[in-house]
Amino acid sequence: MLIDVYIAARASAVRKALPGLVTGLRARPRLAQAMKYSLSAGGKRLRPALMCASYEVFGGRPGEILPAACAIEMVHTYSLIHDDLPVMDDASLRRGRPASHKVYGEAAALLAGDALLTDAFTVLLSSKYPPRVKPARLLRAAAILARRAGSGGMVSGQAADLEAEGFLDRAPAGRKAGLSLLAYIHRHKTADLISAAVEMGAALAGAPEKELRALSAFGRDLGLCFQAADDILDVAGDRKKLGKNASDARNRKLTYAALLGVEEARRRAEALRRSALRNLAGVKGRAGAKALLAEMAGFVLRREN
Amino acid sequence: MLIDVYIAARASAVRKALPGLVTGLRARPRLAQAMKYSLSAGGKRLRPALMCASYEVFGGRPGEILPAACAIEMVHTYSLIHDDLPVMDDASLRRGRPASHKVYGEAAALLAGDALLTDAFTVLLSSKYPPRVKPARLLRAAAILARRAGSGGMVSGQAADLEAEGFLDRAPAGRKAGLSLLAYIHRHKTADLISAAVEMGAALAGAPEKELRALSAFGRDLGLCFQAADDILDVAGDRKKLGKNASDARNRKLTYAALLGVEEARRRAEALRRSALRNLAGVKGRAGAKALLAEMAGFVLRREN
Repeated sequence: MLIDVYIAARASAVRKALPGLVTGLRARPRLAQAMKYSLSAGGKRLRPALMCASYEVFGGRPGEILPAACAIEMVHTYSLIHDDLPVMDDASLRRGRPASHKVYGEAAALLAGDALLTDAFTVLLSSKYPPRVKPARLLRAAAILARRAGSGGMVSGQAADLEAEGFLDRAPAGRKAGLSLLAYIHRHKTADLISAAVEMGAALAGAPEKELRALSAFGRDLGLCFQAADDILDVAGDRKKLGKNASDARNRKLTYAALLGVEEARRRAEALRRSALRNLAGVKGRAGAKALLAEMAGFVLRREN
Repeated sequence: MLIDVYIAARASAVRKALPGLVTGLRARPRLAQAMKYSLSAGGKRLRPALMCASYEVFGGRPGEILPAACAIEMVHTYSLIHDDLPVMDDASLRRGRPASHKVYGEAAALLAGDALLTDAFTVLLSSKYPPRVKPARLLRAAAILARRAGSGGMVSGQAADLEAEGFLDRAPAGRKAGLSLLAYIHRHKTADLISAAVEMGAALAGAPEKELRALSAFGRDLGLCFQAADDILDVAGDRKKLGKNASDARNRKLTYAALLGVEEARRRAEALRRSALRNLAGVKGRAGAKALLAEMAGFVLRREN
C-alpha cells in the first residue's frame, strides 16, 4: 500500500540521519553509544511520517524538515528508555532487543534518555531549514514539542500510568473511575506526542491557527486509536512480532481490553479512527497529503507490532 | 555588598514566579508537587542572576527576561534531582532537605526531573517578551540552553563524573590523567550551564557574535572557578551551611582538593577568577552591568554554601 511506502521512506531518511546527528553533538563515547543503540532499534517511525505528511498538507516538501522529524523521534526514544527503567515499568525487552538499562546499566540509560530529550531541542533549533520555516514558525514548533512532551502532556501520562498500577486489584468495581483514568493516560502518555508530530508539521509550514487546531484534534484521535490498538495487541498479540513482553495483562495493568473486553476495545479503536477522519475532513490543504494522513489512521489500526 | 543585593533581588523574582509557572503547566497533582518541592528548595539562584546581568550588559532590563531566568533554574533543578538518584550519586540530602526521591520515591523523582527539563523549554519558548527579544534571538537562546545542557555539555559531564568514581583507588599514580578527566567534568557538569546563563542573556539582548564569544569564555572560567570552590567546600566546608552531605572526600571522589591539596586548589580557583575577569574586560557593553558580572566572580569564590 502507498502509505507503507511513504512511512518506510520517511523512516529510512530518519534512520540514516540520526547517527550523524548524535555524532555531531560530541557526547562522551559511551553515552553516544547508548543513545545510538536505542535510536537504531527500529520501530515504525510513525511520528516523523506524521510530521512530514502534515507539513505537506500546507505545501512543504518532507525533506525540508528532516531535523525536526529526527527530533521528535529522539523525544519518543527518550521516553521509551526512561519508561523501561526498573523504577518505572521495569521492562527488559524493547523492540525485540534488550532494553537500554540491560545493556548499559541504569545510570547510563537514565543519562541517555536525558541526553536524547535535551538534544532533540538542539537538533530542532540549531539545524538549517528553507526560508519557508521562519524563526517564528520554528519557535512555535519547538513550543508545541515542549508542551506535549512535558508535564502538561507525556510526563503526566506516565505519572498517571504509575498511579494506575494495581488499580484493577484495588478497585475491582471501579470500572467508571478506571475508564476515566485510562482516558487520561492514553491522552497524555501516547496521544500528546503523536498529536505534537502533526501539529509541528503544520506549524513549520506556517498553517493558520484554525487548521492547526483541526489537525491537533485529528492527531489526538489518531493517538488514542493507536493506544487502543496497542492494548489489544498486548492481550491478543504475537510476542515475537511485538518485540516487547506482552505483559500488560499479566501485570493486571489498566487497559481497555481488561476493562471492556477485546471486542469492545476493537469497537472503540474503530470509532476513534472515524472521529480522526472527521476532524481531518475540516482541514483546508493539499488533498493528496490529507489522503496520506487519512491512510495513517488505517495503518495504525491494522498494524501487528 | 551590592552584588549580594542584586543576586537576592533576581532570586526573589524567580522564586516568586516559579510556582505559578508550574501550576500553569497543568501537571498531575503529585508530579506538580514534586516539581515545586525541588524548585522551592532555595539555593543561590546564581544562573538567573548571571543571565540578567549579561542581558543588562547589552541594554536590557532584567524583569524583561524573567521566564528565561526561571527556565535555566528549572534545568539546573532537574539536573540536581537526577544526580541525587540512587543509581547516580545516591545523595539523601540536598540544600538542607531530603532529596526528591527520599520524599516522593524514585519513579516520581525521575519524572519530576524529566518534566522540569522539558517544561523549561515551554516556559522559555511560550512566554511573552518585549519587542527587543525577537523570535530569532529567542531561538538562539533556546539553542544555547539545549546545547549546553545536552550530551555535548552537562549530561556528558555527569557521565564522566560516574566514570571517574573510584578513579583515585584504581589509578593512584594517575595524577595527570586525573587532572584531565577532572577538567572535562568541571567544564561540562558545571561550567557549561553557568556559561549558558551568561550566553543566553547576551543572545536575548541581541549581542553580536564576538561579544557573545567573549562572554562565553567569561562564563566558562566563572563556572570552573565555581566548581573549584565547591570542591574546596566539600573538603573544608561546614556541612550545616552546605546543606548536603560533604561526601566527595569520603567517597574518594575525584576533586582538585583530593588531587592537589586544598591550598593548590585555592590557587587554581583564584587564577580562574582572574582569567574570567580578563575575558570580561574585552566585552563592549554597559560598564555598570559588566561590574556586576565581575563581582559575581568574587561572590562565587567567597561563598560558604
